[in-house]
Amino acid sequence: MKRIGLLGCGRIGQVHAASVAASARAELAAVFDPFEESARAVAQAYGAAAHTSPEPILDDESIDAVIVASPTPTHIDLLTRAVQRGKGVLCEKPIDLDLARVDACLDELGELTDRVMLGFNRRFDPSFADVRARVATGEIGNLEQLTIISRDPAAPPAGYVETSGGLFRDMMIHDLDMARFFLGDVAEVTALGSNLISPEIAAAGDVDGAVVTLRSVDGRLATITNSRRCAYGYDQRLEAFGELGALEARNQHPTSVRFSGAQATESAPPIHHFFLDRYTPAYRAEFEAFVTALETSEKPSPGFGDGRAALVLADAAGESLRTGRTITIG
Amino acid sequence: MKRIGLLGCGRIGQVHAASVAASARAELAAVFDPFEESARAVAQAYGAAAHTSPEPILDDESIDAVIVASPTPTHIDLLTRAVQRGKGVLCEKPIDLDLARVDACLDELGELTDRVMLGFNRRFDPSFADVRARVATGEIGNLEQLTIISRDPAAPPAGYVETSGGLFRDMMIHDLDMARFFLGDVAEVTALGSNLISPEIAAAGDVDGAVVTLRSVDGRLATITNSRRCAYGYDQRLEAFGELGALEARNQHPTSVRFSGAQATESAPPIHHFFLDRYTPAYRAEFEAFVTALETSEKPSPGFGDGRAALVLADAAGESLRTGRTITIG
Amino acid sequence: MKRIGLLGCGRIGQVHAASVAASARAELAAVFDPFEESARAVAQAYGAAAHTSPEPILDDESIDAVIVASPTPTHIDLLTRAVQRGKGVLCEKPIDLDLARVDACLDELGELTDRVMLGFNRRFDPSFADVRARVATGEIGNLEQLTIISRDPAAPPAGYVETSGGLFRDMMIHDLDMARFFLGDVAEVTALGSNLISPEIAAAGDVDGAVVTLRSVDGRLATITNSRRCAYGYDQRLEAFGELGALEARNQHPTSVRFSGAQATESAPPIHHFFLDRYTPAYRAEFEAFVTALETSEKPSPGFGDGRAALVLADAAGESLRTGRTITIG
Amino acid sequence: MKRIGLLGCGRIGQVHAASVAASARAELAAVFDPFEESARAVAQAYGAAAHTSPEPILDDESIDAVIVASPTPTHIDLLTRAVQRGKGVLCEKPIDLDLARVDACLDELGELTDRVMLGFNRRFDPSFADVRARVATGEIGNLEQLTIISRDPAAPPAGYVETSGGLFRDMMIHDLDMARFFLGDVAEVTALGSNLISPEIAAAGDVDGAVVTLRSVDGRLATITNSRRCAYGYDQRLEAFGELGALEARNQHPTSVRFSGAQATESAPPIHHFFLDRYTPAYRAEFEAFVTALETSEKPSPGFGDGRAALVLADAAGESLRTGRTITIG
Repeated sequence: MKRIGLLGCGRIGQVHAASVAASARAELAAVFDPFEESARAVAQAYGAAAHTSPEPILDDESIDAVIVASPTPTHIDLLTRAVQRGKGVLCEKPIDLDLARVDACLDELGELTDRVMLGFNRRFDPSFADVRARVATGEIGNLEQLTIISRDPAAPPAGYVETSGGLFRDMMIHDLDMARFFLGDVAEVTALGSNLISPEIAAAGDVDGAVVTLRSVDGRLATITNSRRCAYGYDQRLEAFGELGALEARNQHPTSVRFSGAQATESAPPIHHFFLDRYTPAYRAEFEAFVTALETSEKPSPGFGDGRAALVLADAAGESLRTGRTITIG
Repeated sequence: MKRIGLLGCGRIGQVHAASVAASARAELAAVFDPFEESARAVAQAYGAAAHTSPEPILDDESIDAVIVASPTPTHIDLLTRAVQRGKGVLCEKPIDLDLARVDACLDELGELTDRVMLGFNRRFDPSFADVRARVATGEIGNLEQLTIISRDPAAPPAGYVETSGGLFRDMMIHDLDMARFFLGDVAEVTALGSNLISPEIAAAGDVDGAVVTLRSVDGRLATITNSRRCAYGYDQRLEAFGELGALEARNQHPTSVRFSGAQATESAPPIHHFFLDRYTPAYRAEFEAFVTALETSEKPSPGFGDGRAALVLADAAGESLRTGRTITIG
Repeated sequence: MKRIGLLGCGRIGQVHAASVAASARAELAAVFDPFEESARAVAQAYGAAAHTSPEPILDDESIDAVIVASPTPTHIDLLTRAVQRGKGVLCEKPIDLDLARVDACLDELGELTDRVMLGFNRRFDPSFADVRARVATGEIGNLEQLTIISRDPAAPPAGYVETSGGLFRDMMIHDLDMARFFLGDVAEVTALGSNLISPEIAAAGDVDGAVVTLRSVDGRLATITNSRRCAYGYDQRLEAFGELGALEARNQHPTSVRFSGAQATESAPPIHHFFLDRYTPAYRAEFEAFVTALETSEKPSPGFGDGRAALVLADAAGESLRTGRTITIG
Repeated sequence: MKRIGLLGCGRIGQVHAASVAASARAELAAVFDPFEESARAVAQAYGAAAHTSPEPILDDESIDAVIVASPTPTHIDLLTRAVQRGKGVLCEKPIDLDLARVDACLDELGELTDRVMLGFNRRFDPSFADVRARVATGEIGNLEQLTIISRDPAAPPAGYVETSGGLFRDMMIHDLDMARFFLGDVAEVTALGSNLISPEIAAAGDVDGAVVTLRSVDGRLATITNSRRCAYGYDQRLEAFGELGALEARNQHPTSVRFSGAQATESAPPIHHFFLDRYTPAYRAEFEAFVTALETSEKPSPGFGDGRAALVLADAAGESLRTGRTITIG
């Protein structure tokens, strides 16, 4: 049984706590949150110790690994201290909003970053993972065009946008990682943005819709379409098109019920409302992969380098948006 | 070019006239309807001669074949006279509502009935025909269970029910023929009926919903579900289940548009409203098969015997409904 | 926390053990199985006590309720002793294969049977339950025709057939209960059976495919189609048709992936393989409903009477099969 | 009855001839093709006069309108002469490959170009047209993102690529027009291309895959994905996403048959193979719209200006591809 410490007991921290509890190979030993009430609530639900500072967890040699689910600006500090104390780390994305700080962290830690797994949970969604695996078997031949559609149900408050790093670094970073998951390294990024939804987001200097096109190093193309608002739920689709055919991952519904009436036929219910509904199995599978990496001492995937690469692409998208130019990645 | 005479210019006669006009191998030479206006309207639309009695058509040696689309009680007389004059006949179903009269006709005509094709148009629906053909190739192995759902959009006037022979002989006869198309000869018929829709139909002594189960001579099972009313259109589905899998023919929509909104997702439009929308391609293909039979002098299929067999099953269903017994077919 | 005793640690018992473990409102206190190894394995996995006789569980006053998941012939004895000791009971279907024994049990227990919930898990399948709830809201108006298709992936060994009571009492009993869930009490049952799959099943005197039609007391119709073998998995579908439209519960797939290639397009993966995959959420929801009944001391649903009623229908189907008659339910 | 002259009897000319023949409001009076055999074949099939020069048709005052279906370099000359002789014109796209020539034509003809309808047949596809009409009714609120996927079944011979103007002006021009149909005038064009399919096309200096993003004058975004090869047929899809939901036009299949077997379930047949299968109803509806414009003397839509605008976008896409810049439309 791997003993896990949870750093951060907010919404995403609670998701991870449930994944730990559901695992037969790990247990939640201790949790940290500066808000005592938050820490205590999660600790009680899962029989773990509660702390309002991270030190007791980082210093506890019986704890094998930590999950970093605290606010983004604290990620680098916490993951650095954890790996330096010999712990494995599952770190929520992004590593940091500032690439320079990410690079400084990489310089400092060197090979220690091999102990860090990045929380790109969608790689573990059963449908996306199945498409990826089937592409790898050659079922569609050479993958040539990747189409990703990713829309949130509702725009976040403008305050969130200001601290989250904006659409590219906060929301699209998942899709940029998904593109890398399928296409490998990216050579060129081109972005268009729009402000059609939220005047507050526009006032905060961000876009609320975007289309980004990518070319991989080996010449394959991808499009990512994002919207901060979607009337029918959490729109999460992907299509891999290749020489021999296409594999789509369609949206998912809570039931298989279809209604036919005078106005419309075969109507499915609304799709899953948001990431907690859609990606629960993905978070579980992500944590299991993390435990396997802990058990085997192999480098987890996606790793620190994948977190950095996605941030590079998000920044390139921002630059393309500002300049109207296709950005070539170093 | 085969020269065709049309006997009966009502709704179904007009469907056949359009099929003749669309064919490159046939032309509409003359039409008959006791209502001069009806005859003239169809004749003018397609450049044919109009008659208010059938004799000029039956006597015209330049006419190769006739389509019998007149009221059911006239079918036997017209088809008899036509085949005796050496013409091919495409006769709308049913041959007659009275099996004794059908058998008398068979006695009188003998092998001349080999010139008669029965208008079981659904055998020529591209989807049903494709399922049938793929079953024949062995794609699902031995066909074991056949499920037919067939619902009309709205109940006919009670007056129609009285003259049409009732649900089994008027509506389900198509599905009974479809069952024979897939399963061959039927050994047993069991029927349940209901009166949930139209008090007028109940008053006329007929059911407005029914479920019939069949066992074929070689032991395979089928269910037919009928309703005289369907809120979402003309519900016409079939599923052939066998050892290796299943082939379904789903309902068909006028477009491939799907709508996703806050209440429902992937909603298709209403299906085709009724048989003129759904089965236009079937009527065309049926007529082409008839022309091929004329050209090759081969016995058309479905033939007189298929028309008789479907009527036998419809009568057995009625008997089962009255007696609460499974009826064994002679 | 309700303390639960599990009587029977075979395949279905293990399913129930997992549901108890997943509940936040109950805990698995003790398990019984005559095979010590089976009892110990389940007990260890969930931290419960293991017994090779049921007495220690039935006698333990700290245990609130038991789940009867032992072989069918033991159901009545165990549920009788449990309710007489004041415990709630969740009993796997069927209560017994012999209606006379069921009636004797009812005579003996009287109102004590109100403490028994029957394990008709499909009522709790999220899709079937959603259709049922939407029918209740009037979304399709009066429900008129119910179509149930239910096929197992592979025939059981002939030995199982002999002890299980045959297709109607073993397999279709679930569908007969589903029909009652939608239509209420049933007035008439008509059955057809076939032997197209397994000579061993035929030799054991049972059918391996069947079609049953039902008429409810208020005149509505249902068809149930069963097969002991289905090449594409565990075929579990239902369609409720009414005045204003239809609600279907379609089959369910492990992912939302669709493949398009040169031979076929939009191909979904195989559906769930069998009941453990398809009905895990149903078993969970069933157990939660049982706990709610325990907490509120309300009569659980489905109850003993539902278990008896389904058995009556299964026996009527058997009688109809033997006699070729529609059987009227008392 | 409008009398129609057909200029050009190649593949696309034959499609138009069939549309004229199917119309109840027009007749094919005469056809022209420099290859006598081609002209004669079409003329005979539809009872029209055959010519090997266009003059007899252009000079025939009884001919109301012409369809220009000849090679692209001849379009401007023929449409110019036709409108100057008072005839209506339905001109295949593109008007010309050279924008300067198109502008010279516009200068010369001025308002006479109001008699020209451009053959952007996809606007008349029942599914695309339905999506467009429903967007116009406000069903999805403000349209914000348009996703077009358009793939041909197989790459044309390299020789065709050389004379056709390349992927943007030959193939994507349809999709660029579709974007304008939904979004109105376009402000910015950004293109990425790839060469993953055909070395011959690469050698001819063209791309064989492309992704183009557009921003409309009012700030809405569109993506177009093209491929010269698609294993599963003629991939023609569109999704309009707006404030209140999304409307998709999915691919279309020749039948509604679905197959379920051990390897895959609910498999549809291949989609329509190419444009003759998919767009026959669109060509028919396009021609009917043309006849209506002739009858009412109203300006047909899409018109000469739409043909020019699509060419401008195709050229901008080419420029973006060469420069790696987003191109702003004048």
